[in-house]
Amino acid sequence: MDAKTGLRRPALDPATVPPRTTSGYPTEAMRAVTNGRAKRPLGDTLGLTTFGVNLTRLEPGAASSLRHWHLRQDEFVWVLEGHVTLVTDEGEQVLGPGTCAGFPGGTPNGHHLVNDVGARGVPRGRRSPARRRRGLSGSRPPGAPDAGGLALPAQGRHAVRVT
Amino acid sequence: MDAKTGLRRPALDPATVPPRTTSGYPTEAMRAVTNGRAKRPLGDTLGLTTFGVNLTRLEPGAASSLRHWHLRQDEFVWVLEGHVTLVTDEGEQVLGPGTCAGFPGGTPNGHHLVNDVGARGVPRGRRSPARRRRGLSGSRPPGAPDAGGLALPAQGRHAVRVT
Repeated sequence: MDAKTGLRRPALDPATVPPRTTSGYPTEAMRAVTNGRAKRPLGDTLGLTTFGVNLTRLEPGAASSLRHWHLRQDEFVWVLEGHVTLVTDEGEQVLGPGTCAGFPGGTPNGHHLVNDVGARGVPRGRRSPARRRRGLSGSRPPGAPDAGGLALPAQGRHAVRVT
Repeated sequence: MDAKTGLRRPALDPATVPPRTTSGYPTEAMRAVTNGRAKRPLGDTLGLTTFGVNLTRLEPGAASSLRHWHLRQDEFVWVLEGHVTLVTDEGEQVLGPGTCAGFPGGTPNGHHLVNDVGARGVPRGRRSPARRRRGLSGSRPPGAPDAGGLALPAQGRHAVRVT
């Protein structure tokens, strides 16, 4: 039983799960994309093996990952707090609390989520077409955020990610 | 694109997904358990096939299902609003917003969620040991809630369920 919340398995208070802030990407430039990302592995902690569930917080400027897609794995994202920009081949859109997104496996449309939305939920600015077209290779990180992004209050964004 | 929210696939506003209030249980007594349950099939709507994601609202007195477990499927629940009682072999506990639970496949511990928690988040009362022990067979519904439960304000509870 968790002493603070009184919850016991199979229930879990996500705050009791240590966040992981490291990245498995092989180069420093790639890892820089996820600087400011903290992932709490809820599914692993609860013993789930057929899919993963991660509570992810993105500080301003951080991305969930490089743009990517999976051959077989489905992905689902639920936005809990704040606003994030979802980037896909079709462009960008801002997701707020209580919205979601899904990415069926085998759909070759690289996607990621970026915390580059202003404190009032207004997008901080559209990216260039070149940046928008940046796809799967993963060799080019999205680049440093504009100074305006970093100047925002450090409001993290939460999402439950299921893959 | 959804006219109201401006979201377009692969993003989704759950409010645009019609809720399902029916049950596939074979008897009226079993179906009564989930009276007051509304499920929005988010995963299906987004084309996901390797797991399901449902946004479920439970009105006072409603249960998510009969107590059950799965041989292979993992399950994960995230509580978005309100409080629900999680029932397992180990007893009952109340889950509030921002807490979660996970049920690995192949673990023979029948579970379900019941909206029988008072408006202030205080459990409405412990169930009898006999009721608590009610397990997998599904032939005995949990029974009608106490009148006190039905007298509560009609505050639904939300959960994202992944199976």
